Amino acid sequence: VGLREEILEQPAAAARLLGARADFDAIAEAVRQRRPVFVVVAARGSSDNAGLYLQYLLAVRNGIVTALAAPSTITLYGARPKVQGALVVGLSQSGRSPDIVAVLDGARAQGAITVALTNDPGSPLAAAAEHSIDLRAGPERATAATKSYTTELLASALLSFALDPPTAAEDADVARLPALMAEALAAETGARRLAGGHAQRELCTILGRGLGYATAREWALKMQELAQVAALPFSAADFEHGPLALAEPGFAVLAVGSAGPELEAIRPLLQRLRDDHGARLVVLSSDAAALDLDEGLPVPPATPGWLAPIVEIIPAQLYTYHLTIARGLDPDQPRTISKVTKTR
Amino acid sequence: VGLREEILEQPAAAARLLGARADFDAIAEAVRQRRPVFVVVAARGSSDNAGLYLQYLLAVRNGIVTALAAPSTITLYGARPKVQGALVVGLSQSGRSPDIVAVLDGARAQGAITVALTNDPGSPLAAAAEHSIDLRAGPERATAATKSYTTELLASALLSFALDPPTAAEDADVARLPALMAEALAAETGARRLAGGHAQRELCTILGRGLGYATAREWALKMQELAQVAALPFSAADFEHGPLALAEPGFAVLAVGSAGPELEAIRPLLQRLRDDHGARLVVLSSDAAALDLDEGLPVPPATPGWLAPIVEIIPAQLYTYHLTIARGLDPDQPRTISKVTKTR
Repeated sequence: VGLREEILEQPAAAARLLGARADFDAIAEAVRQRRPVFVVVAARGSSDNAGLYLQYLLAVRNGIVTALAAPSTITLYGARPKVQGALVVGLSQSGRSPDIVAVLDGARAQGAITVALTNDPGSPLAAAAEHSIDLRAGPERATAATKSYTTELLASALLSFALDPPTAAEDADVARLPALMAEALAAETGARRLAGGHAQRELCTILGRGLGYATAREWALKMQELAQVAALPFSAADFEHGPLALAEPGFAVLAVGSAGPELEAIRPLLQRLRDDHGARLVVLSSDAAALDLDEGLPVPPATPGWLAPIVEIIPAQLYTYHLTIARGLDPDQPRTISKVTKTR
Repeated sequence: VGLREEILEQPAAAARLLGARADFDAIAEAVRQRRPVFVVVAARGSSDNAGLYLQYLLAVRNGIVTALAAPSTITLYGARPKVQGALVVGLSQSGRSPDIVAVLDGARAQGAITVALTNDPGSPLAAAAEHSIDLRAGPERATAATKSYTTELLASALLSFALDPPTAAEDADVARLPALMAEALAAETGARRLAGGHAQRELCTILGRGLGYATAREWALKMQELAQVAALPFSAADFEHGPLALAEPGFAVLAVGSAGPELEAIRPLLQRLRDDHGARLVVLSSDAAALDLDEGLPVPPATPGWLAPIVEIIPAQLYTYHLTIARGLDPDQPRTISKVTKTR
């Protein structure tokens, strides 16, 4: 079983987690009793990108502020930030990152509501948290996280539901998710063709806005660790005021266009990059006009905006997978140290 | 007056702000009456990097969690996250970013303690906040932020003092800061020589850990907008688990070595990058042995660890300034759109 099989398995993994929604009931009950004042997310790497999605979702759906923890404040400096009234979430595929476990340990000792979202229910992280959710992604053998990332995103949505129950429309949206993810896999042929033409690119910029920023960061990480492309992710809002200086003819831009407000916020910038700076765009979007801005990587048109990160990362993964092969590299044996983040 | 003059003016700007410490008294009083449960920082670009320093300082010195706001949750999605018991800080040189102003407006309406740290006391951000601190950096004419960045860092330290008064040692540390910053300017000759040898580099990675991560991000932003070098900033903890795949012989690494726990956390990685991957290092550090790892960019040895970001960015700015010139570019006219971040 290699990386491609794990990419293809994502709709099934999401369906498994959806089948276990009752696992979140105990969290919903704890939150009913002690409504958290704010949320802290501790995570690294891909899981940190899932944390960005959780941060946006909790702000928009639940009206609650989320801090992405800086675990090194605890492990390097011995900080003990107060989190009594908080919900503290540890996100980790392996559940074995000592600094993430340390954040949860400290929070639980203070009496915070603690939740682990991990793919290993027997891990130290699961043991450290009061509530542990098994991501049910199944064994992830490839070094690059794919199905553990999308199940972390889905678990984030279900955690948001535990704080405030879904509307009927939201319930219907998540029920359609595995089908939308399966539809997203159909982008593979186009993604392979695109990637084949980009094998010489050593550098690219990846732009996203709002919910799409999580996708931009995760896509960049995949491009770095698999395709060995120096991919710079930016919020499109930050990119315009400084890093835009990097743009010159042929500048490669991968844009997370999504649909809705993210796309409208980013479209004028993409047009300027193409027309005034001579940039070459790959637009990941569910909007037909956005796909036609230059080269396009399609996302299923029926994807609900608030779930877009869970669906749109799939064509991005497939593009990166085939780019890795086109560059003569092995996607199953990236030049990395280890799958488990062991940072203290 | 150009960018170099503004870099050189930083010790004087810091001294001006230190002379106005009484400006923070009203914040200290408000915080005594209503101790905030958490802190929210709204900022973009360089100011967002200053926010990272504030986040670390508040965790370590004050034991309080800080969320770096995602302003687009408000401006794109109309979120109204609850911040009643919070301290909400807007960081902006110009005080004119509509999305940052929107965060402060919303927070003040909810009854949060609101603070603006801005270089323009007549700006909309200053008007939106209950408490406004004038950074006193003086007019910043260059597009790239330098003296507004270091005064934002110093204002962050003084804000931390407003929450919990400084020890005598901390008081002595900040009093020495302008002298240390002046001493850091002496790195210019070495920085120019180093930069002269790096003019052909189009790409580099910038590593930092803990407090040094803020410096890594700010250095990367300067490299992008001034020298047009594709600089990828990473927490060293994240870099080891994935992006390390980018490393190959000649791979250019700028390392924020600082001193103390940050350096000890990063030193083994730097040695491996040099010995096993053939990377070329520039180490920014106050530690003599770290400077000898490869090429070194010295920081005054007497710099207190917790103030290092305010001092160490100065040699990094000087390196970037001279690299920009060595690459045939004009540091006073970077290819950017505008100084004021106008994102809605």
